[in-house]
Amino acid sequence: MRTTEILLTTLRQAPADAEIVSHRLMLRAGMIRQTAAGIYNWLPLGVRVLRKVEAIVREEMDAAGAQEVLLSAVQPAELWLESGRWKEYGPELLRLKDRHGRDFCIGPTHEEIITDIIRHEIRSYKQLPANFYQIQTKFRDEIRPRFGIMRAREFLMKDGYSFHLSQASLEETYQLMYRTYFRIFSRLELEFRPVLADSGNIGGKVSHEFHVLAESGEDRIAFSEDSEFATNVELMDSIPRADTGALKIARGIEVGHIFQLGTKYSEAMKANCLDENSAAVTLFMGCYGIGVSRIVAAAIEQNHDERGIIWPGAIAPYQLALVPIHMHKSQRLREAVEDLYQRLVGNGIEVLLDNRKERPGVMFTDLELIGIPHRLVFSEKGLDKNTLEYKGRRDEQSADIPLDTAIEFIREKCGRR
Amino acid sequence: MRTTEILLTTLRQAPADAEIVSHRLMLRAGMIRQTAAGIYNWLPLGVRVLRKVEAIVREEMDAAGAQEVLLSAVQPAELWLESGRWKEYGPELLRLKDRHGRDFCIGPTHEEIITDIIRHEIRSYKQLPANFYQIQTKFRDEIRPRFGIMRAREFLMKDGYSFHLSQASLEETYQLMYRTYFRIFSRLELEFRPVLADSGNIGGKVSHEFHVLAESGEDRIAFSEDSEFATNVELMDSIPRADTGALKIARGIEVGHIFQLGTKYSEAMKANCLDENSAAVTLFMGCYGIGVSRIVAAAIEQNHDERGIIWPGAIAPYQLALVPIHMHKSQRLREAVEDLYQRLVGNGIEVLLDNRKERPGVMFTDLELIGIPHRLVFSEKGLDKNTLEYKGRRDEQSADIPLDTAIEFIREKCGRR
Repeated sequence: MRTTEILLTTLRQAPADAEIVSHRLMLRAGMIRQTAAGIYNWLPLGVRVLRKVEAIVREEMDAAGAQEVLLSAVQPAELWLESGRWKEYGPELLRLKDRHGRDFCIGPTHEEIITDIIRHEIRSYKQLPANFYQIQTKFRDEIRPRFGIMRAREFLMKDGYSFHLSQASLEETYQLMYRTYFRIFSRLELEFRPVLADSGNIGGKVSHEFHVLAESGEDRIAFSEDSEFATNVELMDSIPRADTGALKIARGIEVGHIFQLGTKYSEAMKANCLDENSAAVTLFMGCYGIGVSRIVAAAIEQNHDERGIIWPGAIAPYQLALVPIHMHKSQRLREAVEDLYQRLVGNGIEVLLDNRKERPGVMFTDLELIGIPHRLVFSEKGLDKNTLEYKGRRDEQSADIPLDTAIEFIREKCGRR
Repeated sequence: MRTTEILLTTLRQAPADAEIVSHRLMLRAGMIRQTAAGIYNWLPLGVRVLRKVEAIVREEMDAAGAQEVLLSAVQPAELWLESGRWKEYGPELLRLKDRHGRDFCIGPTHEEIITDIIRHEIRSYKQLPANFYQIQTKFRDEIRPRFGIMRAREFLMKDGYSFHLSQASLEETYQLMYRTYFRIFSRLELEFRPVLADSGNIGGKVSHEFHVLAESGEDRIAFSEDSEFATNVELMDSIPRADTGALKIARGIEVGHIFQLGTKYSEAMKANCLDENSAAVTLFMGCYGIGVSRIVAAAIEQNHDERGIIWPGAIAPYQLALVPIHMHKSQRLREAVEDLYQRLVGNGIEVLLDNRKERPGVMFTDLELIGIPHRLVFSEKGLDKNTLEYKGRRDEQSADIPLDTAIEFIREKCGRR
């Protein structure tokens, strides 16, 4: 891609009301723009990151045998009345009436919808366990949305739901999802911790949160370096501290949450199934959320410096920035740059060629702000010496590399062999 | 994939209120389930088809240089008041108030949002032309939703918007989108016609609809087999018929619509830009829609028989059904089937192995209903002769093929070489 072919719309300054670094940098990098309080549009650079996160989540959920569905965003009140949540949920549930005056809401989660499907479609114990997920835009009418997409009203979420004949089967899938979340956050190249958590108003007893570690995190988590013990500090009072050893405290951003719901919804909504002995069993249920759009912000909170974002390779909008110096004044350089660009693209490198007629300083500043992990600078001087100047986004110094091994060098840097 | 690992939930009969064949077959095949009038959940089999359509649309839009964005689903009334559509649109616009009593709507289209972005972000003529698209769930509060997802209230759409300094530039991108739509519907393996159309209440003067030909189509289109002339019959009165030659009339389902909007929105919302001579220009605008979820239904209207759906290969949920006969009684057959299944998967074939303990007739009926294009039957008798029984979904007769060339045979059938 060439910078003249995408909406590259960087800002020197973020609006004064952007309080946290990911909000400021996403605005400054031109990844998002606000439509209304807590409601954002994703611009092309932001969408590229969002789609990469989404793809990793989808691949790992599919690999774990979960089945993708797409449940209706607009949900009828009847189902929420049945579960009891129409009354419980409060004003964070965005309610609306259709043209005929019927009550609906825009789903913040989909327990009711999926339970309704399951009670109609699951006819035999042979169809269980079953695990479903979707990746969908959701809405939660936060009273004071803030921190950009970190605590937005409209957000992209992966929500998943599993159904079981027994608690033992639920626990098995719960463990599978735990391991799957481990793989997802590892592939996202984020430093994270799964921690014991409070299951809040979703219901159920056992739950774990997955936190991306970042100083700006809203949650405090306590973990032991000697064991696997980790918990949300909120829960510390209710946990015997004796055998936890020395605890460290860190700040985290919650990006995933898995719950053993038990029979809360299936009892209220009568989701039953006959078991092998033709006895009716109330189904056991688990639910599994990942904040897809929030991950983008959390990744920035964890990976940035004073110059801008530093994307983990797995979710960078482009792997490599190719920056020609005064290319518009040199036919010879233009041709060499074009040739290199085509060879990089041909080798599967996602490269952003900065072909704007801008001063080098302007280009460097923009490309560091938007966080491209690798940079190659190509100048007439380099062309004379048959070298390029390479700099990783976290490097202090740049280094000359030979032009004729550049492709191989970059493939290795980008993990493509 | 094995049938025991997906929610295969077929029905013998569709509900009586399902009037058209695609609605009946999507319900019977277990692709969708209704949540409320005109609002549907997509089950795993349906999502697989939807994602394939989506992927083809995305690839072709990207290849045409359009930039993907994700605009907010919930839109503030202010922008719609500016464009005038808050008053114009009528009760099909689903309006709502947030917890603070502010007016919003759930977007049926996004002209206002994208024009608002453009007027803030486009600072120089050098950034134009620019072409954006998104693939998003939308809502139109139809008074009488019917025909399943063909005329649903909630639906998945690709909407695109382009901005230009001149009418000539708009026409150039419009032509590019016309050709891109041609490629998209060709890759979807659908019989279709682009036709001259009325631009309705979206505004603007020139527009084309893309119709999938099907007897059940709601629109009548007239086209010449001697020339490229084709039009929606609604427009026939306003067109001189002299030089159109002999016309044929066919029924079509509108699955795409492209418009030259001109300056309707950019004038109302003051979307201007300085040109090369520093003169302010009101931007020209085009918009380009594709009904992603409607395509799924239209494909069925065009491709079905009395036994069920007949998917075009490009969007089939699985390419091949592998049906073992009484496998559960034969260890030897089970092993041979498992071996063949693994080799098919390893060769990139999307295969659905029917491993249920069902009679062959039940399996055949289900697999024909859900429309898998190719079928291989594997029996003990076949194992003795080293043959499999192949049948294409449109074939009258099945044919024996040698087991040792089965992979090659299927790869060729599925277009994988």
